[in-house]
Formats: sequence, structure tokens, C-alpha cells
Amino acid sequence: MQPAPGESPIVVLVRPQLAENIGTTARAMANGGLFHLRLVAPRDGWPQDRAWRTASGADAILEAAEVFPDVPSALADCHRVFATCPRPRHMIKPLRTARAAAEDTREINGRGLRCAVMFGPERAGLEAEDMAHADTLVRYPLNPAHMSLNLAQAVMIFAYEWWTATEPTPARKLITNGTPVATKGLLEAFLDRLVSELDASGFLEPEKKRANMVRNLRHWFERGEVTEQELRTLHGVVTELSVGRMRRGRPD
Amino acid sequence: MQPAPGESPIVVLVRPQLAENIGTTARAMANGGLFHLRLVAPRDGWPQDRAWRTASGADAILEAAEVFPDVPSALADCHRVFATCPRPRHMIKPLRTARAAAEDTREINGRGLRCAVMFGPERAGLEAEDMAHADTLVRYPLNPAHMSLNLAQAVMIFAYEWWTATEPTPARKLITNGTPVATKGLLEAFLDRLVSELDASGFLEPEKKRANMVRNLRHWFERGEVTEQELRTLHGVVTELSVGRMRRGRPD
Repeated sequence: MQPAPGESPIVVLVRPQLAENIGTTARAMANGGLFHLRLVAPRDGWPQDRAWRTASGADAILEAAEVFPDVPSALADCHRVFATCPRPRHMIKPLRTARAAAEDTREINGRGLRCAVMFGPERAGLEAEDMAHADTLVRYPLNPAHMSLNLAQAVMIFAYEWWTATEPTPARKLITNGTPVATKGLLEAFLDRLVSELDASGFLEPEKKRANMVRNLRHWFERGEVTEQELRTLHGVVTELSVGRMRRGRPD
Repeated sequence: MQPAPGESPIVVLVRPQLAENIGTTARAMANGGLFHLRLVAPRDGWPQDRAWRTASGADAILEAAEVFPDVPSALADCHRVFATCPRPRHMIKPLRTARAAAEDTREINGRGLRCAVMFGPERAGLEAEDMAHADTLVRYPLNPAHMSLNLAQAVMIFAYEWWTATEPTPARKLITNGTPVATKGLLEAFLDRLVSELDASGFLEPEKKRANMVRNLRHWFERGEVTEQELRTLHGVVTELSVGRMRRGRPD
């Protein structure tokens, strides 16, 4: 399920300032299955111990990181380049959401082409000259009143979308810890028993309201996608309560 | 476009350890349009200056944060509760991806119900007893070989999905800086001119290859979704090169 290293886009950090952010970027990359990191003119040089301290085990990515003096040399062997850009201005360039960019890079990598995604320095982001080297811009849909993303957060969102672009995880499911969901027949048998206990206790009187009361109870039980194990527990609960009622010798 | 505060789910940090992470969580919440923060038994007490230092301006969220002694009291006024859980085990519970959970919470908030999303402490995540108070689990699709997410990263992904669940941003578009995309007629006029210049220079000989060469050139120009401004520039380039060729007095 994990994409092979050769099939994931290259993350290019342009003039990153803090080594800690390079480490947290590597961690985010590992979370989302991105393995190739390039650094353009990191402010404090490279390598930096502080990066390893924040990478939370994503050491292999840091150890394989490549350093370049400028943007063109970092991109020279790439076929397609995306640049993250919160507020694109004064340029004519295709723009993608993070999701569409992740889908596009997956398609591009799938054709055997090398693809890079550039992220700018912490304070100011990419400069116009950096962005001119990209063929496509990426803008994340986020709260326009608070667009400022931490560098590793920006990488995390792209990495998450990259992983999500192929993971076959169903959006919704019930985890049942190995016990099967009960059939409607098993649920019916439980409801029959519950209703007969409630009849015995007098809870379902008067008779003219009985059908409605039973139906309303049923709505709740049908909704819950109950498992066989839970039905067994519910049978036990009914037994216990009925025995208690009989022991106390009163019908409620 | 920004959802009103009353219409966003509550982020519940259960026993958070580092105040810095509470601050970066607030920043991530602001990025994604989440405004309600609750803290269950923060390890170092509350408030903590260190949280404000990492919140990057999301102070209003920290100032409005509510503190609770335990999970049930933090959830008492909520109608639906989601719990983030990387490896759900030993329970029967509906499971959602981050995307589906964000869609679900939006639907639930849209019905005027109060919805909470729980995140566990940094080191160990939520305990089984915490998760028992949730009605739904959330698991992010991420690299199974490296699932450990920083707390603020986990909140960031949910906040990003929450925002994305309604933003009407088109996945793909061309930004053109106000200049219109050229019609095919304008492109045709340019290509006609280019071809006649190339005919004059002899570039399109021999005649039997001419049609193919023109068609191949056309493929490239048609692909680019050129703007009127760029076509004007290209006309200028052709003029300049032709004049240069004529000045030099040779046909290539």
C-alpha cells in the first residue's frame, strides 16, 4: 500500500530558516508517504542536529536530503513543478487545490516523470522569481482570515492529500471487533422477547397505544446496527431485569 | 464564507501535555475555521504563556478556551462526539476517515446540534475509557509505517477537512491576472503569421513535411491555454526575430 520512494513527489524547501521545521517537515512527509527532500540554501547550513531532534524517527528522509544552492539547480531534473502559494498575484499560471495537486502529482509520477512541490521560507513564503520556475501553483482552501500556516503544517496537508489520493479506505464503516452484525431475524427474536416481557410487566398498556409504542421502540433498535455480541448482552440485561422484577414481586 | 463560530465543532484536547501544542492547535483551528477549544485536565494547568507564544495570532481561541476536570463534563452539553484514534481495537463503533468525519460534523452542526472532536495526549493518545464516551471514531488515512502525528498536525488535518467540506473552490483553474484567455481565432491569427514567417525563412521545407510540421507546432500552442496578453508578447517575439533575421540578411 505504501508508494515506493521512486513514485512520490520531491518536497523542495526553499531557503528554510529553522532546522526544527526541516525535522517536523520530514516527520509530516513520512506520515503521508513522501520520501524525497531537497533543501535550497538552508539559512543555517546543513546538516543540523536540531532537525533530527524534531523528526520523530523520520531520520531516513533527513539523511537522504539533498542540498542545492538555488531553485533552478534543485529543479533541473524534474519534469513538473508545483509551488505552494497562498495569495497568487501578478501571474498567469494554473492553480490547484491541495487535493487536485495531489491527484495531479500522482498521475504525473504514474507516468514515470519526476515531480517536485516547492514550499517557501517560514516568514515570507516563495518569492515571485521562485514561483516563475513552477508550472502550476497550489493554494489550500483555508480560512482567509487566518491563512498563515506553519511550514510543516503546509507540508502535512499536501502529504496527507497525497496519501489519501490512493488509499482505498472506505469513508465510513462500522468496526465490530470481529463479532458479526446481527441479522434482522436475530434482532426480531430479541424484540419479540422484549415485547413479551413488557407485556407481562404491563408497560405496553393501554392496548390502543401498544402498536405505536412497539413501533417507536423498534425505530431505535433498528437504527443501531447491533452486533450479535451486543444482542447477547441485551438478552442478558432483559433476563436480569425480568428476574429482578419477579423477585421483587411487582410488575414494574 | 467563514462559518460562524456557533456552527463549528468543538475541539477537545484530552490531558494535553505541552502548552506549546495547545498554542499550535489554536493556530491550526484558526486556519481551518474552528473556534471552540476545550481542555480536559491540561498537565501543566491553564492558562500558560507558552501557548500564546505559539498560537501565531489565534489568541481569541485560547482566551475563550474552557477547562474541564474530566471527559464526561467536557462532553456533557454535546450531542455527538467523535474521537480520533489511529488504531481502533476491542470496540464496536462506527469509524470515519477525516474527510467523512468533517462532512458528518458539518451535517450535524447544520441541524443545530453541538458536536465535539476529541484528541488524546501527545504521548499515548486517547485511552479506551475516553473513547467509550464517543459515538464515532476517526482514523486518518496515513502511512501505516509512520502513523505518529504531532497533536497540532492531527488537529490541522481535521480543521483543513472541515474547511474543505464547504469551500466552493474549484479544484483546478487558470489564474490569468485579469487578462482574458485568447479565443481560438486570435490563436489562429498568430499561428498563421508564425507559419508565414517560417515559410519565408525556409524552416518549413521540404513541402511534403510542411503539413506535419505545422500540425505539430499547433499541438503545442493549442495545449497552453494562452492569454491575449501572452499572444501579444508572442507576436512581439516573432516580429523581433523576423526583423533580426532580415537585418542579418539571411533566411534562417
